[in-house]
Amino acid sequence: MTETWILSEVMHPILRENEMACITLLTDFGLEDGNVGVMKGVILGIAPDVTIIDLSHEIPPQDILSASFVLDRGATYFPEGTVHVVVVDPGVGTKRRAIAGRLGAYWFVGPDNGVITRLLERAERESWSTEFVHLDEPRYWLPEVSDVFHGRDIFAPVAAHLTEGVELQSMGIEITDVVRLPFPEPRREGHTMIGEVIYIDHFGNVTTNLRQSDLEGRRVLEVSVCDSRIPGLVRTFGEQSPGTVVALFSSTGDLILSVVNGNAADRLSCEVGEEVVVLMDN
Amino acid sequence: MTETWILSEVMHPILRENEMACITLLTDFGLEDGNVGVMKGVILGIAPDVTIIDLSHEIPPQDILSASFVLDRGATYFPEGTVHVVVVDPGVGTKRRAIAGRLGAYWFVGPDNGVITRLLERAERESWSTEFVHLDEPRYWLPEVSDVFHGRDIFAPVAAHLTEGVELQSMGIEITDVVRLPFPEPRREGHTMIGEVIYIDHFGNVTTNLRQSDLEGRRVLEVSVCDSRIPGLVRTFGEQSPGTVVALFSSTGDLILSVVNGNAADRLSCEVGEEVVVLMDN
Amino acid sequence: MTETWILSEVMHPILRENEMACITLLTDFGLEDGNVGVMKGVILGIAPDVTIIDLSHEIPPQDILSASFVLDRGATYFPEGTVHVVVVDPGVGTKRRAIAGRLGAYWFVGPDNGVITRLLERAERESWSTEFVHLDEPRYWLPEVSDVFHGRDIFAPVAAHLTEGVELQSMGIEITDVVRLPFPEPRREGHTMIGEVIYIDHFGNVTTNLRQSDLEGRRVLEVSVCDSRIPGLVRTFGEQSPGTVVALFSSTGDLILSVVNGNAADRLSCEVGEEVVVLMDN
Repeated sequence: MTETWILSEVMHPILRENEMACITLLTDFGLEDGNVGVMKGVILGIAPDVTIIDLSHEIPPQDILSASFVLDRGATYFPEGTVHVVVVDPGVGTKRRAIAGRLGAYWFVGPDNGVITRLLERAERESWSTEFVHLDEPRYWLPEVSDVFHGRDIFAPVAAHLTEGVELQSMGIEITDVVRLPFPEPRREGHTMIGEVIYIDHFGNVTTNLRQSDLEGRRVLEVSVCDSRIPGLVRTFGEQSPGTVVALFSSTGDLILSVVNGNAADRLSCEVGEEVVVLMDN
Repeated sequence: MTETWILSEVMHPILRENEMACITLLTDFGLEDGNVGVMKGVILGIAPDVTIIDLSHEIPPQDILSASFVLDRGATYFPEGTVHVVVVDPGVGTKRRAIAGRLGAYWFVGPDNGVITRLLERAERESWSTEFVHLDEPRYWLPEVSDVFHGRDIFAPVAAHLTEGVELQSMGIEITDVVRLPFPEPRREGHTMIGEVIYIDHFGNVTTNLRQSDLEGRRVLEVSVCDSRIPGLVRTFGEQSPGTVVALFSSTGDLILSVVNGNAADRLSCEVGEEVVVLMDN
Repeated sequence: MTETWILSEVMHPILRENEMACITLLTDFGLEDGNVGVMKGVILGIAPDVTIIDLSHEIPPQDILSASFVLDRGATYFPEGTVHVVVVDPGVGTKRRAIAGRLGAYWFVGPDNGVITRLLERAERESWSTEFVHLDEPRYWLPEVSDVFHGRDIFAPVAAHLTEGVELQSMGIEITDVVRLPFPEPRREGHTMIGEVIYIDHFGNVTTNLRQSDLEGRRVLEVSVCDSRIPGLVRTFGEQSPGTVVALFSSTGDLILSVVNGNAADRLSCEVGEEVVVLMDN
């Protein structure tokens, strides 16, 4: 399978000698039923030396937007050559395509349902080269493919074969029309930026779609969200006393609302989709 | 310890050269207290190169039947030679035996409380060879054995020693009377098959004990469960619009009830143990 | 980076030839947001061959005392040379120090907020040698350090560099005043020992700060806690019939209250901090 492979660092960075291969898994499966473990078993049967890392398995069921956010935020902290497998896949077994692709130094394997949107848009903003294929070569899948669990039957084996050196192009026909989802974009109105809540995390931090770069060069006077007004920004949680609502930039540059040692989503009764208004000094 | 070992692929497939060893863990421990991590630490102290995979740690406390279902459904997707460790063990420290065994190409380590039943019955249906021992050789355990955590003190070290090449027979006396639990069996009555709900998964899919093979050659006209009637079967979730209740076969061939992009257990108010009636065309 | 390193088993046991390195992670991050996965990605980018084990990521948010308990209880079940990384860090980005240290054969990396207290006190009781540094050498961190996620930006890379053979002393200036938290200590009053509830586990077992060694040589007549009185001790769960409240020693020697096949915290309406009184025969 690898005989005719011509080593190319650019195209297949994971094949550098002595480098371990890494696969991440991002799903909405939860951890109780054994399905995540089964995907790992399938991977290890093909690629026994690969390191498998869980990105998350607690994406809310069928929530492609959250998965896209978590993938984008985490993807580039992994070693170059890492294969990111995403299985948030409400359309499994229907006509939605199974795809794999390369975005710069990282690989993606998953359903063609828009989950790649945020990472792909970053790749384009930052001029990474990208390529995608429609997975249509069953010889890289499990022998028997169910209609309801492509994570096990298609995506896990394809990811394993990628780490073993199989060329992307041999796994399917090239495509250039991967599905993208419309993400809400912040807009400027006078001295305000208007965005929305896009994610609530484990600590109840309320993440907005406003980014540090959107507000650069201006001073934030006030953040209004969910009937609350937070004056200005802090640099980190511990600057205010426990229980205070604060606005700050997250470790990935998103504007977030937090309660010091508390839960902002509960405190503000705030949910994904609510409007956020940032008042600036100019 | 391995000097007198005679390599036999049939008896000890994991010893093939260059093959990594794999251990899975299936418990009701949850992930919050560190007990799963501790078992892994014990394993790595004995078998530093083994790959450890979590099958599940969210089995409901003391629920041997659910563990038996999850083990059976997942076991054979792992590489041959994998050691499956199960610690759902309400009888820890009592007279219940600690056992280890081989079922075809897979190993089992855990309490003798019936958790192996479903996998063992499959082994017998499919004519795999099997062998079991009562673990009674403390030299393969931790030096100090508590009365309440055999997962750490007995099962983890035994699994690690198995992957290091210790013979099953040297770990305990052979037994042929492993404990089996009575699982509910479906029955035929005229044009109907009558079964019951045996498992509810993370998505709220309602799994029954009726299998694709039970219904082969017949057309399903209607499935009745929990005061609902679902007409016929679909092939996959996406065939109907979101919110529809559908009946279909799971990725492991079990008849399940689902709500498209929803939660069938909630929608049907359905619990484990409820009767399922399938009306067929003959 | 390792050129001038002088191999010393005592100081750096993980460098023994052929021995794998192991890093554990203990956080309050939960598993849903991908932050744990991101820390692992950072580690693998620096130390590709390390084995990473989750100790727990379900510590209640900001609960340093629980983290200290889980760390102490689990730490020594891992191979010597294991690096334990703890990120329960309400003071991230403030003046609280980032530290690393060695306690006997184990390493610690995390915030200087007292989370090490219990393990450190054990080290002192058992006369392990210890050493700590204030992490002040940014060349061992990620190039960009956020104010809110030192787990990713400082602790993960420092742990990875430790397993790669970087000397502790080169990572920061030595300190001897690591922060300690006051843990509640049991006290004796006549024929009673008075302690308190310090942890509730996944099964609802109620863990007290009374240890087997505190009660040695005496017979326990009765345990009173949360308005319930439990007569004497049992050796293991299965000695009484399901539903019975029992007192026994946990696998790490703590006095705990359990309900056989049930949940003692729910049954006794018991929370962390409640008083426990043990009546003894002398």
